[in-house]
Amino acid sequence: MMPKRLLVRGARQLLTLRGSAPPRRGAGLKELSIIENAAMVVEDGQITAVGPASRIENLATVRHAEELNVRGRVVMPGFVDSHTHLLYGAPRLEDFEMRIAGRSYEEIAAAGGGIASSAKKVRRASQAALRAQAQRELWRMAACGTTTVEAKSGYALDGPGELRCLRVLDGLDGQPIEVLPTFLGAHAVPEEFHGRSDAYIDYLVSEVMPAVAARKLARFVDVYCDRNAFSLPQARRYLEAARRLGFGLRVHAAQFADIGAVALAVELGAHSVDHLERIDPAVIPVLGRSSTVATLLPGSVLFLGGSQHAPARALIEAGAAVALATDYNPGTSPMWNMQMAVALACTQMRMTPAEAIVAATVNAAYSLGIADRTGTLESGKQADFVVLDAGDYREIGYYFGANLAVMTVKNGRLLEPPEEESTDGKETG
Amino acid sequence: MMPKRLLVRGARQLLTLRGSAPPRRGAGLKELSIIENAAMVVEDGQITAVGPASRIENLATVRHAEELNVRGRVVMPGFVDSHTHLLYGAPRLEDFEMRIAGRSYEEIAAAGGGIASSAKKVRRASQAALRAQAQRELWRMAACGTTTVEAKSGYALDGPGELRCLRVLDGLDGQPIEVLPTFLGAHAVPEEFHGRSDAYIDYLVSEVMPAVAARKLARFVDVYCDRNAFSLPQARRYLEAARRLGFGLRVHAAQFADIGAVALAVELGAHSVDHLERIDPAVIPVLGRSSTVATLLPGSVLFLGGSQHAPARALIEAGAAVALATDYNPGTSPMWNMQMAVALACTQMRMTPAEAIVAATVNAAYSLGIADRTGTLESGKQADFVVLDAGDYREIGYYFGANLAVMTVKNGRLLEPPEEESTDGKETG
Repeated sequence: MMPKRLLVRGARQLLTLRGSAPPRRGAGLKELSIIENAAMVVEDGQITAVGPASRIENLATVRHAEELNVRGRVVMPGFVDSHTHLLYGAPRLEDFEMRIAGRSYEEIAAAGGGIASSAKKVRRASQAALRAQAQRELWRMAACGTTTVEAKSGYALDGPGELRCLRVLDGLDGQPIEVLPTFLGAHAVPEEFHGRSDAYIDYLVSEVMPAVAARKLARFVDVYCDRNAFSLPQARRYLEAARRLGFGLRVHAAQFADIGAVALAVELGAHSVDHLERIDPAVIPVLGRSSTVATLLPGSVLFLGGSQHAPARALIEAGAAVALATDYNPGTSPMWNMQMAVALACTQMRMTPAEAIVAATVNAAYSLGIADRTGTLESGKQADFVVLDAGDYREIGYYFGANLAVMTVKNGRLLEPPEEESTDGKETG
Repeated sequence: MMPKRLLVRGARQLLTLRGSAPPRRGAGLKELSIIENAAMVVEDGQITAVGPASRIENLATVRHAEELNVRGRVVMPGFVDSHTHLLYGAPRLEDFEMRIAGRSYEEIAAAGGGIASSAKKVRRASQAALRAQAQRELWRMAACGTTTVEAKSGYALDGPGELRCLRVLDGLDGQPIEVLPTFLGAHAVPEEFHGRSDAYIDYLVSEVMPAVAARKLARFVDVYCDRNAFSLPQARRYLEAARRLGFGLRVHAAQFADIGAVALAVELGAHSVDHLERIDPAVIPVLGRSSTVATLLPGSVLFLGGSQHAPARALIEAGAAVALATDYNPGTSPMWNMQMAVALACTQMRMTPAEAIVAATVNAAYSLGIADRTGTLESGKQADFVVLDAGDYREIGYYFGANLAVMTVKNGRLLEPPEEESTDGKETG
């Protein structure tokens, strides 16, 4: 279903996001480089020309191209969702109701909920069931315009289970969108360690992480370093081991308290430090001067009923390269739509629609080390784009709570969920 | 496309919402009356049987029925969106960017934004353009499972303009969903009155409202009674005139301050009092004992970046009949998806998914005086329902920021947007 040569025509606004080298900071976060009345040529899954329709449609090369008429809509790079916990087995609806009833995170965990309950479900689930669940989510994301997704392990919390989850994610790469796996063994301490977090870190560092590296099952390693999670010395030991094994680093930091995790991420040259709702103001300039991307996750703040979002404006003013992601997970952010992350960035963190779009594409791609091939619509890049039912790109942050995407294209291929696929998905709901 | 007899089968959960007489209060707000593995028969647009598949599928009447297999999904009554400003001409993207830049409501109005800017657009727009805009929104709502929508005038602010908008809304009734028009002349004071709000109320009461009544262009009359809006004496005069003309009453109250509008609404027997973010705690028991529905609009709180939602739990505890709506409008709530209103009710106002669903269907229908024919799935009611890609109804409040609806049925007719319709819609974006 991928034509050799495709002419995309009829774009009222085509957001190329051409501009300064990523990661984009400050004014660079506004570089959408919009072409009005635009067209684009795709050959063998790659963009070969993009520009005003008047020029592109007269190229000799388009004469025998298949046409995709987007009829006056907005075209932009597919969203890059750089922080998800995609593979989780089943939704945590009981936790959800307990939280509504006023129970705290600790009470929910004591009642058998929380990460441990997902770990139970994931350990028990068959590989086929895990695959079906994650597959359904990938189609949901694709339907909302996401073309690349980072996906963390961390709901098995033992070697065999984590490896199994990473293998499932690996098998889903390109089905239908790109999946970049991250090893998040240090997500929580599993039951069998009875709270002995140092021993669990030892186990991860000495046994699990080398196995992940040997099998090349992840590009990144992530740790949850926060109050009531892994400590700073534990995170350092774990991340240094990961770095020695050649992994890129990502860090969950300052969601509930900044215990030094942000500074550690910068010191170790992490690709990304994520959450930052409680970042120590003194660390903002340090992060701003670094090459570590600040990945903001407003969905989890909303879902938990909080009001303290990450200080996006202060981060941008300090020069930080800001990215946005869904944090898609069953406990704190059951939100797969990057458009909603953009809307929350605009309405809750006062990012402009342009800044939010750069954060959700180019900068997210940079944080995953793939900005050379996706995140913008330029010749030589992958033809990863979304067509939105809008006449002005700002509608993406404005109209919220729904899905404006009408077509998603990955590597030049228009994604259309097989009817059976969505039915299977529903059966596991 | 409406078959004479339709068998809906394969519902894993069918939420009938059968229960105590509306409006539902207290424990009544939890009455979903779910049937597992359910089926339903529809004849000539009406429900004639609903129950367990084992019984329904053996009825003689289903033998020659057309089948709609929903394949294990959740079926529930179509959403009734009881508070929208559907017809607004064009989105207010400049206001949106000004708000992000930190401008206040007053500064935005001074810069040419706010309700006055919509009034300018709506007055200038052709009837065809207004119709195309509202038509597009109706399809968007229908795609998210809404089958009935209340729609207010209030963006023309002069007699001919308001009548024109109400006529457009009247012409859209059933295209594709039911539209119940409300006259909201007292939305803001138009420019030509130079702030003379008493004179504008005089004009509305003596000239415009009688014309609306004579032409039967609205069932309800609404007023914006708040700090920086119409005063309590103005609202009383306007609403009493409306009541004499036979209109049902709705009131925008306590969004920014409770200046007595809630008590006034109750005193005058309004069908609904809407917003209530700043309701005077002393008035909560008064509202709780009344027949006036408390319509909560969490979308506008989110969009404005606020954190003070209406006190849903206190209202429910006081016995109030709570409804939920989108408040869909271009200035403060560009959200057309009732599922998002449900999710915000759960995560921001601690309503349970069951309470939020009752509020978004039965109670909203009651507030519009149509609970006798829609809002539940029972024999004799209109076949107004939505099929959701979920295995458990609680997923509706849990997964947020996207659209779980896969089919919407109005009066027994499966709604499928004509391709041209959506293309026209986009042209006016």
